[in-house]
Amino acid sequence: MIKKLVEKIKKTQAPVVVGLDPNLKFVPEKIKTKAYKEFGETLEGASEAIWQFNKAIVDTVYDLIPAVKPQIAMYEQFGIPGLMAFKKTVDYCHEKGLLVIGDVKRGDIGSTSESYAKAHIGEIKVGNKTFAPFDEDFATVNPYLGSDGVKPFVDVCNACDRGIFVLVKTSNPSSGEFQDRLIDGRPLYEWVADKVNEWGEGSMDGDYSNVGCVVGATYPEMGAALRKLMPKAYILVPGYGAQGGKGADLVNFFNSDGLGAIVNSSRGIIAAYQNEAYSSFGEDNFADASRQAVIDMIEDIHTAIG
Amino acid sequence: MIKKLVEKIKKTQAPVVVGLDPNLKFVPEKIKTKAYKEFGETLEGASEAIWQFNKAIVDTVYDLIPAVKPQIAMYEQFGIPGLMAFKKTVDYCHEKGLLVIGDVKRGDIGSTSESYAKAHIGEIKVGNKTFAPFDEDFATVNPYLGSDGVKPFVDVCNACDRGIFVLVKTSNPSSGEFQDRLIDGRPLYEWVADKVNEWGEGSMDGDYSNVGCVVGATYPEMGAALRKLMPKAYILVPGYGAQGGKGADLVNFFNSDGLGAIVNSSRGIIAAYQNEAYSSFGEDNFADASRQAVIDMIEDIHTAIG
Repeated sequence: MIKKLVEKIKKTQAPVVVGLDPNLKFVPEKIKTKAYKEFGETLEGASEAIWQFNKAIVDTVYDLIPAVKPQIAMYEQFGIPGLMAFKKTVDYCHEKGLLVIGDVKRGDIGSTSESYAKAHIGEIKVGNKTFAPFDEDFATVNPYLGSDGVKPFVDVCNACDRGIFVLVKTSNPSSGEFQDRLIDGRPLYEWVADKVNEWGEGSMDGDYSNVGCVVGATYPEMGAALRKLMPKAYILVPGYGAQGGKGADLVNFFNSDGLGAIVNSSRGIIAAYQNEAYSSFGEDNFADASRQAVIDMIEDIHTAIG
Repeated sequence: MIKKLVEKIKKTQAPVVVGLDPNLKFVPEKIKTKAYKEFGETLEGASEAIWQFNKAIVDTVYDLIPAVKPQIAMYEQFGIPGLMAFKKTVDYCHEKGLLVIGDVKRGDIGSTSESYAKAHIGEIKVGNKTFAPFDEDFATVNPYLGSDGVKPFVDVCNACDRGIFVLVKTSNPSSGEFQDRLIDGRPLYEWVADKVNEWGEGSMDGDYSNVGCVVGATYPEMGAALRKLMPKAYILVPGYGAQGGKGADLVNFFNSDGLGAIVNSSRGIIAAYQNEAYSSFGEDNFADASRQAVIDMIEDIHTAIG
């Protein structure tokens, strides 16, 4: 699956993923009013609103980018209807030719991790029939429980040609509380990186492994070290834009051929119209503002990585 | 909320939680056949089967125990219908007077963690209305991302009188890969334990904090150290029974008054009828086998903790 992502990145010339994290605060009033009129001020109403919001943005940016990354928490907060909007979003993005990275940060042990893997990037058997419940192409995975937690995901990747991105160094301010602590002279995130190499060894798909990693744009020096430490792992880079990561910082995450990393922006794209720089678009043209923000982000990254 | 759990433990004299992790392999053929007849060999059919299985077990054991712990992965693997079965199970357990620990192991950062917290143990506003989407009483939380990931859960606990159990030392064989590594002479899980104390300071509810922790029964010596290190944190103890943890090992997790820990068993209870020791019940009486297994587990723990 990582090979497919690399091909799409080459084709679009955009190592960019749009984070579909539809907070209700980002959704224009007109969309909310319409959805609430139809479904009431209910979980169904909220879910309809975020789905219509997503759809408008996807319709406007899909030709520019290789992939989207819906953050499942923003759907899960609306319960079952929210998760139905998540699934609708995954399916619609597939229809538009986009790859889907499910930002689910799941992780458990043994058969439980296997169940999460089947739910998101695999298949489940019921009697003699087989289903792909949420059917994302990639999922993000939390490594705190060790190999018992990650290997079931890797097995499913191998069986179904899918991929994962394992959290190594996250973009948030307090990520260092545990991740940066030194163990035998090396930070924990480097020990996790070693394991990412080990977990991914048997999952090569072209030049990269289906086992990738997450390293935050907000930590460019660590990004440089981790880029070298995990030569076969594609890096999913959150934290660009709203979280403070700058284009110039991104060069560290890429290989010299411009591959090896894909940068996420969520709020900076989907809520661009609420940003000073794009306010001239106005709320009615929120999706056009998102398109312009994607174009500007791609240019920013091109400038950075040369 | 932890106060309520302690009261229920005292009343039932059972520091025991039944893990509702309904793998299809555990569900008797008769239940599956009926569900598939009604809904086909579909995700809906599988979800109906696990729901009926859960219901029969809950009906048979609810008077013996204070709480249940549904593992959401086992529902999520059946997609939307599976999550509907999860929600039905949560609601039904509440109807029967049980507390519900959602074993969701969520964890992200900032507003994303807040969304997970609202989804599972909090409330979400849609327009002027408020909803509790999944409405569990407790949730399990992964600490790898640091305070940014956990504090939003704590805030929701404080706002809605709910609780969390933070993963400290998990029960699986490879949990030591990262959790046991020494940082300034102390294992990572102890550093996480320090943070559990810090996160829980402002959430006292009776003698304990609404911020508890998870420590596996399979590591009794670490359990003893962690019991002392986190005097205000209730310990949720997985790994008893099927994973190898023995009754005698459990004494380490409890305080001298017999409180301070609650022990989970999943497969050992819900699939008891498939176990040699309870095979005389037969598949038709699977729920009675579960009841007997609960009674035996409570006795085993009483013997251990005296």
